[in-house]
Amino acid sequence: MAEPATQLWAKGEPLNQLIHRFTVGDDPNWDAQLFPFDCMSSAAHAQMLGRAGLISADQAQQLTAALHGLFDAPITITMDQEDCHTAIEAALIASLGETGKRIHLGRSRNDQVLVALRLLLKQTVRVSSTQLLALVQALLHFAKLHHDLALPGYTHLQRAMPSSFGMWAQGFAQGLLEELDASAGLLARIDRCPLGAAAGFGVPLPLDRQYCADLLGFAQLQISPTDCMNSRGRHEQALLDWFASIAHTLEKLAWDIVLYASQEFSFIRLPDAFTTGSSIMPQKRNPDVAELARAHCRQIRGFAEAHRHIMSGLPSSYHRDFQLGKAPLLGAIASMHTLLRVFTELVPQLHPVANHAEQACSDELYAAHAAYQKVAAGAAFRDAYLSIAEELKSGNFKPDRAALSAEHIGGLRNLGLQHSQAAHDQHAARISGLDAKAAAVLQAIWG
Amino acid sequence: MAEPATQLWAKGEPLNQLIHRFTVGDDPNWDAQLFPFDCMSSAAHAQMLGRAGLISADQAQQLTAALHGLFDAPITITMDQEDCHTAIEAALIASLGETGKRIHLGRSRNDQVLVALRLLLKQTVRVSSTQLLALVQALLHFAKLHHDLALPGYTHLQRAMPSSFGMWAQGFAQGLLEELDASAGLLARIDRCPLGAAAGFGVPLPLDRQYCADLLGFAQLQISPTDCMNSRGRHEQALLDWFASIAHTLEKLAWDIVLYASQEFSFIRLPDAFTTGSSIMPQKRNPDVAELARAHCRQIRGFAEAHRHIMSGLPSSYHRDFQLGKAPLLGAIASMHTLLRVFTELVPQLHPVANHAEQACSDELYAAHAAYQKVAAGAAFRDAYLSIAEELKSGNFKPDRAALSAEHIGGLRNLGLQHSQAAHDQHAARISGLDAKAAAVLQAIWG
Amino acid sequence: MAEPATQLWAKGEPLNQLIHRFTVGDDPNWDAQLFPFDCMSSAAHAQMLGRAGLISADQAQQLTAALHGLFDAPITITMDQEDCHTAIEAALIASLGETGKRIHLGRSRNDQVLVALRLLLKQTVRVSSTQLLALVQALLHFAKLHHDLALPGYTHLQRAMPSSFGMWAQGFAQGLLEELDASAGLLARIDRCPLGAAAGFGVPLPLDRQYCADLLGFAQLQISPTDCMNSRGRHEQALLDWFASIAHTLEKLAWDIVLYASQEFSFIRLPDAFTTGSSIMPQKRNPDVAELARAHCRQIRGFAEAHRHIMSGLPSSYHRDFQLGKAPLLGAIASMHTLLRVFTELVPQLHPVANHAEQACSDELYAAHAAYQKVAAGAAFRDAYLSIAEELKSGNFKPDRAALSAEHIGGLRNLGLQHSQAAHDQHAARISGLDAKAAAVLQAIWG
Amino acid sequence: MAEPATQLWAKGEPLNQLIHRFTVGDDPNWDAQLFPFDCMSSAAHAQMLGRAGLISADQAQQLTAALHGLFDAPITITMDQEDCHTAIEAALIASLGETGKRIHLGRSRNDQVLVALRLLLKQTVRVSSTQLLALVQALLHFAKLHHDLALPGYTHLQRAMPSSFGMWAQGFAQGLLEELDASAGLLARIDRCPLGAAAGFGVPLPLDRQYCADLLGFAQLQISPTDCMNSRGRHEQALLDWFASIAHTLEKLAWDIVLYASQEFSFIRLPDAFTTGSSIMPQKRNPDVAELARAHCRQIRGFAEAHRHIMSGLPSSYHRDFQLGKAPLLGAIASMHTLLRVFTELVPQLHPVANHAEQACSDELYAAHAAYQKVAAGAAFRDAYLSIAEELKSGNFKPDRAALSAEHIGGLRNLGLQHSQAAHDQHAARISGLDAKAAAVLQAIWG
Repeated sequence: MAEPATQLWAKGEPLNQLIHRFTVGDDPNWDAQLFPFDCMSSAAHAQMLGRAGLISADQAQQLTAALHGLFDAPITITMDQEDCHTAIEAALIASLGETGKRIHLGRSRNDQVLVALRLLLKQTVRVSSTQLLALVQALLHFAKLHHDLALPGYTHLQRAMPSSFGMWAQGFAQGLLEELDASAGLLARIDRCPLGAAAGFGVPLPLDRQYCADLLGFAQLQISPTDCMNSRGRHEQALLDWFASIAHTLEKLAWDIVLYASQEFSFIRLPDAFTTGSSIMPQKRNPDVAELARAHCRQIRGFAEAHRHIMSGLPSSYHRDFQLGKAPLLGAIASMHTLLRVFTELVPQLHPVANHAEQACSDELYAAHAAYQKVAAGAAFRDAYLSIAEELKSGNFKPDRAALSAEHIGGLRNLGLQHSQAAHDQHAARISGLDAKAAAVLQAIWG
Repeated sequence: MAEPATQLWAKGEPLNQLIHRFTVGDDPNWDAQLFPFDCMSSAAHAQMLGRAGLISADQAQQLTAALHGLFDAPITITMDQEDCHTAIEAALIASLGETGKRIHLGRSRNDQVLVALRLLLKQTVRVSSTQLLALVQALLHFAKLHHDLALPGYTHLQRAMPSSFGMWAQGFAQGLLEELDASAGLLARIDRCPLGAAAGFGVPLPLDRQYCADLLGFAQLQISPTDCMNSRGRHEQALLDWFASIAHTLEKLAWDIVLYASQEFSFIRLPDAFTTGSSIMPQKRNPDVAELARAHCRQIRGFAEAHRHIMSGLPSSYHRDFQLGKAPLLGAIASMHTLLRVFTELVPQLHPVANHAEQACSDELYAAHAAYQKVAAGAAFRDAYLSIAEELKSGNFKPDRAALSAEHIGGLRNLGLQHSQAAHDQHAARISGLDAKAAAVLQAIWG
Repeated sequence: MAEPATQLWAKGEPLNQLIHRFTVGDDPNWDAQLFPFDCMSSAAHAQMLGRAGLISADQAQQLTAALHGLFDAPITITMDQEDCHTAIEAALIASLGETGKRIHLGRSRNDQVLVALRLLLKQTVRVSSTQLLALVQALLHFAKLHHDLALPGYTHLQRAMPSSFGMWAQGFAQGLLEELDASAGLLARIDRCPLGAAAGFGVPLPLDRQYCADLLGFAQLQISPTDCMNSRGRHEQALLDWFASIAHTLEKLAWDIVLYASQEFSFIRLPDAFTTGSSIMPQKRNPDVAELARAHCRQIRGFAEAHRHIMSGLPSSYHRDFQLGKAPLLGAIASMHTLLRVFTELVPQLHPVANHAEQACSDELYAAHAAYQKVAAGAAFRDAYLSIAEELKSGNFKPDRAALSAEHIGGLRNLGLQHSQAAHDQHAARISGLDAKAAAVLQAIWG
Repeated sequence: MAEPATQLWAKGEPLNQLIHRFTVGDDPNWDAQLFPFDCMSSAAHAQMLGRAGLISADQAQQLTAALHGLFDAPITITMDQEDCHTAIEAALIASLGETGKRIHLGRSRNDQVLVALRLLLKQTVRVSSTQLLALVQALLHFAKLHHDLALPGYTHLQRAMPSSFGMWAQGFAQGLLEELDASAGLLARIDRCPLGAAAGFGVPLPLDRQYCADLLGFAQLQISPTDCMNSRGRHEQALLDWFASIAHTLEKLAWDIVLYASQEFSFIRLPDAFTTGSSIMPQKRNPDVAELARAHCRQIRGFAEAHRHIMSGLPSSYHRDFQLGKAPLLGAIASMHTLLRVFTELVPQLHPVANHAEQACSDELYAAHAAYQKVAAGAAFRDAYLSIAEELKSGNFKPDRAALSAEHIGGLRNLGLQHSQAAHDQHAARISGLDAKAAAVLQAIWG
């Protein structure tokens, strides 16, 4: 009948075990994701050492082969090994003896973790972009399918102007396409190789840093070793800020779905696979998936914030504090990947409730449009506005709906879906090029 | 030679599995911590149902006994069960059949999770307070031991006035004692029982809500069912804000230790057990533990922020979004418990480097004090200030150090450690009373 | 045709002017709010100096009289004076000559700003509490007035169970009463006097710190001078966290109002004074006031966060960085005061649209309640649940609404408004006592 | 003897005045900065209306001329006018009568504020980039001047490896050059014209949206009107995230300066113009400017966070909440501009204390380098490491400093300043092109 959960913090744990647990933290867990990238950069480092004559060609070849094996079949990182760097080095020494020890020549765990994170960031941008493309495509399909299905447009959550399901979905497609535009700028920031910075001040050995950068497929070398250290956190944050921007748009999509699925709006019916029942209310079909999607958007914002808190506030150079940045970074990546996947599945299954939505498109949505037309025909806006207001009040306002549709680009009769499709296709080609380059890098490293 | 880490997000996963994983999230993991509290509140609920005649006395007794068993030997929560509530109910049904099913009468998972969280929060305040007491005691021991050991006092990180290791440690002891004062206010907020709120609107059954509140040891009932739902996130945030305040003070302690352990300051030597070496620099003794302690303080701030993002921005009542608040809450609790434990071990082992610290107490630290005394003796402050400045410039300033010590309460010769000790002892007695009450609650529930 | 807004950052500004502007910042503006509190604490300090014989009784009296004049008719703080401390000292010297200069004996701007902020914080808690009381009273009036007016209760933004306007408003009243409970704990933290800490290490003069603390009406002395410095930011943050908690509840109120005022819900009609029209849509009545109230809640959260960023991450003792904390603190206070005032005006004018709300209370809201009753009558919950589900499906579910109301405390037929009123009255008496004490402090200082 | 500061919140203020103050907020103040941009976009809109035959050519010309006058001599925005849009329209009507009223044809305040903000954002990126260039140049000058001046390199704030003032400054130059790289990506996101979106759903008039976009110098049109609304906050946040990234690097620079200016480090002496004295300690030279610079970095982070809180959490489309985003946006812009200006003045005046810094470069800094060389010569790293550790312990370690310098790119003997200078010059040419384009836009609009 002991109290729950107090054991862990009891004084029983021996000091060295406590400190070990404290310093290792969750690294064995998180570093499983860095493991393959450390194998890649270690192999590049070994090959450079071989070319520079700092190790023999045979040693370079042995190290590469062993790292290839680890890349293909990663091993578990133990608490004693603490991180992927030690685990990999230990495995190399276990299989290659003295040759294994040569891998750490001319580098430090400080630049090792930087380059592994950098490769992870680059891949994440690529994978997330591919996922964004799929979601954009789903939204465009939806927009085409329900192109002219009427939907009230809201401002201040008040019925405002005529819109459509097509216009609604195109808005999100365009917002996400902007994120694909932004991803190019993000890559331009992070696509630089820190290897050779060592502990932040270089090493007195004739490293060929450019060779490593090229072999690993980086667009450029990150020249200053001290800037390499100073960029820890900065590059991860750039990814997280991009994620938070994507989440800013997706949160609106999730919110709209929750609203539109309520009995009061009833504009959208969710398929059973995306709702859950209540443990006590037999009538309920709760939009849990959309709610959790909305919460994931806020969670991603929270990860971005938590990361900023952890990685800021320090003088230049390396500090052990940086270790704790891995959790919000990798947590956000997992959250974003699942979120994009779920939305891509959800969008095609959103079922517009056409009659409800149409019914909600009451005449007053056309009031501003009608006033505009009077103005275009010469009336003063104030007069037109007042005359429509009068018609509304007296119940005489009978708008000619067909004549009152926006036909300029982006308007109800001219959504510009073809522009979105073209932008999508262009990004698809670009991402496909990045995928090919990533494959070529693996080919170059492993032979 | 596939790319690392892309499998997880591949389209291979079937939809229902994806959605199931998405909605369950990490709950089976986090809910292990809520499990015993749900057993307690379920038992209280069962006994109340029995007393109210909604179930038979025998059923109430059987349910209590089964829940007692689960409390003492918690079972694993499976992905299919999703959360501790379902796991417990399933176990009751498995062992008691129809009687097991009666446990869910008159409640909802919404108030179930609220009351379990509430009990967890209350226990966390108590456990953290106990840990704070131990750390305060360690600081007071340190302050007594090194009471008069000179240390420069800094403002703007510039040497400013005479201080001592005793004065330095007493500052942190007082800061943490304030947190113990604040914990009473925190308890006053959260010590109210939400059981009976059901889904946020009560139930049409004659529940005796006050009986449950009393049995579970709550100071009061949380009357309004809708406020119960609205308080999800608010109570957790209150704990996290308290944690962030503690971390605000501990971050300063960690920062000071990192600074004082640098070669330039050299005021403190860290024991080997609290430093680590470098993988490439044989001379290094890095203060990793203090750095990670500092980072934990920022991590706790980050968890508090992440939680605020996730739990805010919603209309009243229950939303599924709330589920994601568990991760930052429980993450912060684990982080704080380890942090307090580590500091309590570290403080007694901080080794003042007396000669370095004394040497750094150069004469100019006494300049303001000397000026003050001239002023007290009748000089105008500006004249006194200028005359001391002149003496400093010409090298003639030879302060009478003994005469220039602050003797008012809190000053260098009158630290007021006895006040801190008295406050510590008073809080220790208070917390001990809370522990006794918690034990009595277990006794009352399990008999 | 020069570009807009580039002048300010042009290189024309002389260096000393740039640096002066940078270091002074907005202090002359913000310090206008600290001015009266600095007069009060300066007077207390002068009287203490007089009693301790550090200045003559006549000097103490002259200083007090001059400060009283400044308190009653504050002067403008110029850019050259930088802050209220210098402005007040300059005014004393201008009117009293050498005697004016004696005021700075035994203190520093560091403890001066701390004590002025502390008095401001204490007054803010008191003023905000008074405002909270008024809002709680408005909510209770509303709840009494519309006690039985039906409103659907939502979970997941889906219609869930029967509620009422009375139940809805009582939820918010209870949430805010909890904040009044919490305010006592907040005061327990901040009600301690830092005067005499000087620059963070005391002074070698026989200050009677307790005398000042008593005269200024503080509950206790903040003993450790270094903790006084370390508490800069910590105490302000405690107020801001309290504000953020209030905002968490008020955001839900604002959100509900925006939702309920939409055409789709139509549960509430907003009075004209609280809506605005559209510049182009004649039919619109936008709930701008509720939207801006909602945004103020998020703004207050933002101020709390910004303050945390600015005031954290530093070693112990005083740093000039602290200056920038004033803006988010005083910004949040102004935002909260306006917000509470606006809500107190808005709530009595919310007009329930009874027929719409009642119409939305469709039969299915009673499904869970009906199932519960079957269970209480002996049915297994699963069977009851399924049978109601069947009735719902076939259109045969005709609930006996009157019989299905929650009668336990907090339920639809037993809201517990009298408990809220009693709690309100108790807090009103407590706050009134604090007001009397504050008046007595002014009386004691100015005579 | 009334209490301070209570008047403002007293109930005296009439309701309509309270609500007016609440809804107008600080807009008259903030909108002064949007004023010229609204003049520009209004002129473009007028010219488009003229070309499309929606107003006469003469009306278009009159409107343009009047707007040109307002652009050159902005008027004050009154509380009654609320914002710059109303103030400008009122001025046009005052001077042009009926013609003035035509300006609002085919647009809404929703797209008006979007396009004005967009132009402000674009100019801010350009102005900030120009300022960054000046700071980078100052850092490069400093790095060249003190190229070989020895400085200890730190990790964990422990002396680690040999560095130099040149290496230190080059690190920051490279970090800021990366921000200039990133600015191109930022522009790619925000350089799209929202004009014509009206209230978020377009208008039933033949607007030529592309013409306006071209005339205002936008790289592209933002096609979807609903995405235009959804991007409110997203684009501002992108700027703020960029600012926060710059601040992440500058905070390290400020922190280093504060540390290096302490008596313990004594690596840098600050010029008198950048320090302040103490009101009570005659010996002090406090690094207030560096401390406030550090705090500005955190303030900018705080503004970014506050903005994120305010602008997130909402469904799609326009909400009045957005109004409160202006304060953190414009606050951050002012803070960043001053910060960059101050650093650019400060860096050239940092005075390295060569002898102190050199003295701190003790032999152990070369330990890792010496071990590396042994390894390169064939020793196993562990043996080399242990043998150096032994030499250090026995006091026999006498490193050949000249031989132990990193000569690879980025290393101590090969800082790569020429690469930084080249990158600087390339960005300078790019920004200069943007300036020319901005001037051409003004020319095109005003003729």
